[in-house]
Amino acid sequence: MAKPLIAVTMGDPAGIGPEICLRLLARESLLAEGLPVVIGDADILDRAASHCGLRPARRRMTLEEFARTARTIEEPVVVDVGALAADTLRPGTVGPETGRAAYRYIEAAIDAALAGTIDAITTAPIHKEALRAAGIPFPGHTEIFIEKTGTRRACMMLTSPEITCSFVTAHVGYRDVPGLLNQARIVEVIELTAEAMGRLRGRAPSLVVCGLNPHAGEHGLFGDGEEERIILPAIEQARAAGFAVEGPLPPDTAFLPARRRTTDAFVCMYHDQGHIPLKALAFDEAINVTLGLPIIRTSVDHGTALDIAWQGQANPNSLFEAIRLAARLAQDQPAPATTP
Amino acid sequence: MAKPLIAVTMGDPAGIGPEICLRLLARESLLAEGLPVVIGDADILDRAASHCGLRPARRRMTLEEFARTARTIEEPVVVDVGALAADTLRPGTVGPETGRAAYRYIEAAIDAALAGTIDAITTAPIHKEALRAAGIPFPGHTEIFIEKTGTRRACMMLTSPEITCSFVTAHVGYRDVPGLLNQARIVEVIELTAEAMGRLRGRAPSLVVCGLNPHAGEHGLFGDGEEERIILPAIEQARAAGFAVEGPLPPDTAFLPARRRTTDAFVCMYHDQGHIPLKALAFDEAINVTLGLPIIRTSVDHGTALDIAWQGQANPNSLFEAIRLAARLAQDQPAPATTP
Repeated sequence: MAKPLIAVTMGDPAGIGPEICLRLLARESLLAEGLPVVIGDADILDRAASHCGLRPARRRMTLEEFARTARTIEEPVVVDVGALAADTLRPGTVGPETGRAAYRYIEAAIDAALAGTIDAITTAPIHKEALRAAGIPFPGHTEIFIEKTGTRRACMMLTSPEITCSFVTAHVGYRDVPGLLNQARIVEVIELTAEAMGRLRGRAPSLVVCGLNPHAGEHGLFGDGEEERIILPAIEQARAAGFAVEGPLPPDTAFLPARRRTTDAFVCMYHDQGHIPLKALAFDEAINVTLGLPIIRTSVDHGTALDIAWQGQANPNSLFEAIRLAARLAQDQPAPATTP
Repeated sequence: MAKPLIAVTMGDPAGIGPEICLRLLARESLLAEGLPVVIGDADILDRAASHCGLRPARRRMTLEEFARTARTIEEPVVVDVGALAADTLRPGTVGPETGRAAYRYIEAAIDAALAGTIDAITTAPIHKEALRAAGIPFPGHTEIFIEKTGTRRACMMLTSPEITCSFVTAHVGYRDVPGLLNQARIVEVIELTAEAMGRLRGRAPSLVVCGLNPHAGEHGLFGDGEEERIILPAIEQARAAGFAVEGPLPPDTAFLPARRRTTDAFVCMYHDQGHIPLKALAFDEAINVTLGLPIIRTSVDHGTALDIAWQGQANPNSLFEAIRLAARLAQDQPAPATTP
């Protein structure tokens, strides 16, 4: 296979997306793994380059030009969506214009992936409030990808060298979680996680499923029996299908070092159950992957960092790692042992 | 002040409590800090000593004898409650007899503390299911201490060199948490935490309060506005009273390394919000303190470990650290700067 083409959406123009994309375009060493194609506004990138003292992008093209010539390009390019005029942008602020522009970059990238023009997508951070201000009816990237690709079974996974977590529920309020748990959804997330970790590890992975309540309910002492009624039956169903799954474990002891060493991924019931240990243990190394999509999508696991945006200080490492993972996933074949 | 007398409850007799108490009694180096008084069943300790190949306790006395002579003792003693016959005990099992016995050790220790016979209590682990099997209407130690001492304002705090967390709610089911949050309770936990950390640090502490929802609700995007309606007003009330409090912070980024370095304690909304980072970062070092009691109480932060009980393998370090902290708290005076 030729070097994969990785579309990189520029993220919210007022955030740190433009500057980390510029650092990516200047990073020769990454080119061995994949060819990045930044999808955004070329004039905004130029303004960010001069503002931050970074090297401007060397080559730009329109969406149409890119669609015609994608498989012939040999160096990183900027694909100019023309969503927002550079001189109207106010760096570090939240507004409908930037939310709308960030959304258009994502749409363009998804269209290109569905058309086969590119091999994977890596997303720079968007601002959820800007998205909402623009009237866009999705709380985040994951939901946009699921909807635009017509995906039925999907989940968020965060992976780092230290710890990997996937999520039965994610961007919903604390009190909405119990109503969203059911056996079929948990089995689905176990299956998606096992498939992805099988590809990444090249062998059948070991999974741990967390409980919902303190001490995993301690045999009915806390909570509403969610462990016995919902989570354990899901684990048993997945085991019967051949997956190596343990649980439900008490959420606080699930992530102890000894357990982490023997666990390829943790299936978490809610956002903070997995995000807290991930960020505490691997605070700038985690990569977000959406599992179950017909296209490959990875993402940085940080926000738009409006407070330091356009100052040239933002660390691009998470973006580099997300692109490396996208390139690996684009080249890997599923390992047969992992799908029972 | 003379060396403080630290009552150490033996915990569930079928668990690792007896053997870690024996290791404590044999630990000469701890005696510089406080004099331990193990409250339990002396015959069970003798049986555990012979079973595990550990040194038996040197001196035992009855509760009555201890009450008369406590302030004259100069070496560690075992105070024999006579709650359970040693030959009926089945190590490693859960049952009403051991739950009942563990409860009687706690009662005896609380009585002694309220009478001024001892200066602090450190508790070895009990088994919540054994307690329930015995018909004892408390989910755990903290609730027993609160009830038996007639305490109105109390909370659990876990402390370690790496991270300290206190809890607005603790041993309740996941779905019960939102209904238990209110402004007065959060202010109470901030005050209790600031007072305790002020004593431990010898200066006014910096606190962080976590949100409830993912991203602390992201300005109403997730959840039911608990951050704006309940948590933020509590923080503002505490600030107006002179406390150094930040928040509500997104629960997943609250515990990042840079934030941990500048934070003396995190006020957490629910059990796993604080227990997950504590155990991931300080898995065998955390000490449990009940704040707000009229007596000092610290505890190990591990369970009865029935699977390895009575094999002489249990690590007593958490018990040693809990006793050191109890001795420090018994000797410290509150720092004036911390109570505004």
